Amino acid sequence: MKKFFAEAIGTFILVFVGTGTVVFGNGVEGVGHLGIALAFGLSIVAAAYSIGAVSGAHLNPAVSIAMFVNKRMDGKELATYIAAQLAGAFLATATLFFLASNAGLDTASLGENGFSTVNVAGAFIFEAIASFIFILTILTVTSESKGNGKIAGLVIGLTLTLMILLGLNVTGLSVNPARSLAPAVFVGGQALSQVWVFVFAPILGGLLAALVGKNLIGTEE
Amino acid sequence: MKKFFAEAIGTFILVFVGTGTVVFGNGVEGVGHLGIALAFGLSIVAAAYSIGAVSGAHLNPAVSIAMFVNKRMDGKELATYIAAQLAGAFLATATLFFLASNAGLDTASLGENGFSTVNVAGAFIFEAIASFIFILTILTVTSESKGNGKIAGLVIGLTLTLMILLGLNVTGLSVNPARSLAPAVFVGGQALSQVWVFVFAPILGGLLAALVGKNLIGTEE
Amino acid sequence: MKKFFAEAIGTFILVFVGTGTVVFGNGVEGVGHLGIALAFGLSIVAAAYSIGAVSGAHLNPAVSIAMFVNKRMDGKELATYIAAQLAGAFLATATLFFLASNAGLDTASLGENGFSTVNVAGAFIFEAIASFIFILTILTVTSESKGNGKIAGLVIGLTLTLMILLGLNVTGLSVNPARSLAPAVFVGGQALSQVWVFVFAPILGGLLAALVGKNLIGTEE
Amino acid sequence: MKKFFAEAIGTFILVFVGTGTVVFGNGVEGVGHLGIALAFGLSIVAAAYSIGAVSGAHLNPAVSIAMFVNKRMDGKELATYIAAQLAGAFLATATLFFLASNAGLDTASLGENGFSTVNVAGAFIFEAIASFIFILTILTVTSESKGNGKIAGLVIGLTLTLMILLGLNVTGLSVNPARSLAPAVFVGGQALSQVWVFVFAPILGGLLAALVGKNLIGTEE
Repeated sequence: MKKFFAEAIGTFILVFVGTGTVVFGNGVEGVGHLGIALAFGLSIVAAAYSIGAVSGAHLNPAVSIAMFVNKRMDGKELATYIAAQLAGAFLATATLFFLASNAGLDTASLGENGFSTVNVAGAFIFEAIASFIFILTILTVTSESKGNGKIAGLVIGLTLTLMILLGLNVTGLSVNPARSLAPAVFVGGQALSQVWVFVFAPILGGLLAALVGKNLIGTEE
Repeated sequence: MKKFFAEAIGTFILVFVGTGTVVFGNGVEGVGHLGIALAFGLSIVAAAYSIGAVSGAHLNPAVSIAMFVNKRMDGKELATYIAAQLAGAFLATATLFFLASNAGLDTASLGENGFSTVNVAGAFIFEAIASFIFILTILTVTSESKGNGKIAGLVIGLTLTLMILLGLNVTGLSVNPARSLAPAVFVGGQALSQVWVFVFAPILGGLLAALVGKNLIGTEE
Repeated sequence: MKKFFAEAIGTFILVFVGTGTVVFGNGVEGVGHLGIALAFGLSIVAAAYSIGAVSGAHLNPAVSIAMFVNKRMDGKELATYIAAQLAGAFLATATLFFLASNAGLDTASLGENGFSTVNVAGAFIFEAIASFIFILTILTVTSESKGNGKIAGLVIGLTLTLMILLGLNVTGLSVNPARSLAPAVFVGGQALSQVWVFVFAPILGGLLAALVGKNLIGTEE
Repeated sequence: MKKFFAEAIGTFILVFVGTGTVVFGNGVEGVGHLGIALAFGLSIVAAAYSIGAVSGAHLNPAVSIAMFVNKRMDGKELATYIAAQLAGAFLATATLFFLASNAGLDTASLGENGFSTVNVAGAFIFEAIASFIFILTILTVTSESKGNGKIAGLVIGLTLTLMILLGLNVTGLSVNPARSLAPAVFVGGQALSQVWVFVFAPILGGLLAALVGKNLIGTEE
């Protein structure tokens, strides 16, 4: 139960601060692309070094599924983590909705993911590759035998920053079903009709990462 | 007494460099939002790895109160810390006032906090949530049993950078009564009439963080 | 064989994310120079803390040659690494080519290196000095006796970010034959006719670094 | 003698990359203030984790004088370090002069320090305070009893980045006599007539830091 609350608070931090910076950051004249990329990355740092002490701070169903596939958690724990991640993401989005209304901002946009330049195949392949890189780094740096636990939170956060620098103009960069689902449900429309890409591509990338991590890198030894 | 001077120098560093970058940084054409966010965050790095060796570098009454509530310091020490933090913040603001006058800048603005888009409820809730996240990270990463002492200064600094990326356009992001009070007294007007939000919301957020840290994360075990 | 795949995946990460950010990052209005510099640097962080556990994440023939000269690897291993680096770089460039076409972007530019303000002598000297600094840092921070293994990936990544901040307007900053060769072959023209500079200058800089590392710093003791 | 060459190479890295980024970085449209601040800071990271293994990477006469005052080095070593720092800074400036000419850039500016908004008193006080903060952090984080050796290079680099974010619009931020002297001699004029401020204020700030470090923080215990 502690893990549920920890993981929910952690995902709240990720979505509240990360997508909140998209909503309140004032675009290029404000924090800019780099600021958004850093906000998402550093929100993982904050979550990892706070509630990470309890739950490990997955914050992401695709990460938890990869951990499950590599036998770092059982099925019941997986269900708890995913439920907590969704709860945290929805609570964060609702809080942002309230604050954006309060500030008189347009709530038609809540930092959701989507694609318009690439087509659906490009978006799916892109998200799958980005998730593969992101989750492979997570699985290795948190590995008992191959990892680097003390700085894992920094490394994972900087890797998310990296992927957003690359992908903000391609898909808004998700690599995280929970982070995409919550704003999509609030915003609806295209965000909701495209959200399946941001659910399945990260999971696929994570499964590949679990496979490569286990067999090539030896993350589970 | 050493702790008093250490904490005063540390808060001087935070306010002099952080708000000084707002005053001298030349806005979007200069260091930009990201530069301001990094300046505040890195000022904590500088303070943590210098005077932090003596006082732990709280630099913030809301942090010290949370530490006191979780029994990491006694009442007398708390009073010393808060007095030192206020002294450091006021000395830094006075120095900035002198330098800004010297440079011919308008001293009507000294990097104070305030809100105009959100209303008072929005500002209070926002500052309380931001302070909760910030202080929960501090309490965990400096915890004897759950923490990560060697890189705590980096993690805390990057978490402040994070909160500023999110909140610069909302409230100017305080999470720190001492950091808000000193410029408000110099500038007066709206900054002074709104300053109670930046005193009480961070303290409330810190109390929640102390509670969650102790009971959910086990920071005091 | 594991090292081949690890090094190929690592170089894929470097080129896909680094040059991908040049292609998709939307210039100054987007991630800016700083975003590109961070993307290349952080791609090394991601590679170092993932596949680095297997191959050490050289990602760069000039680095591997310097390691070989200082007897950290034998000739056969050197050949394997260089082949893997070239394979990873070409695969990454092909993937970017596909995604850029898919997004309707002009594929005449794929983040290749080149020079127009400095002449060939200036470009060669500049790349050699930059590679010397970069590879000297790598050789020292990964040295068994003088190094700092746990944070080596962070230090190396930040050093690449540093060199790109300096050199983006000079040569696009390569310091890496594999990273330059792959886009040059796809793009052709000036990128291809100038690519010898980005092959030989980094190797020369790396050889100097190996010499200075061994004799001045004692990296191989 | 090894220390001489190490320190000269290190100061070459600082000045070549740091001021080189000012010269080649293309201003606000290019790397921006933040890019310049990061370039100086990360050049310390590169130097610290390469030649720092031999000389400790002071790179700055004001730092070496503070170390000498606190008895971390003797007078002969101090003279060697300062000579090496000046040699490295001049060689770097000469190399930049060559490359800027080669690129057809105006060599009237070589990233020198100076002040025009603040007057000489403001500039002196500002540089002294900034040097105090910077060198106090260095003395503590490298202290045998109070320090944090493994990440010292990162902390010191980020602290220089911090001071530049604050001071780029005030004095160009020196805190380092060698870094100011070399470009001033090449550029002449106002840079040369003002350079005494950037020689003596950093030394004064460093002496204060040595005093506070020893007596308040206990850096030499």
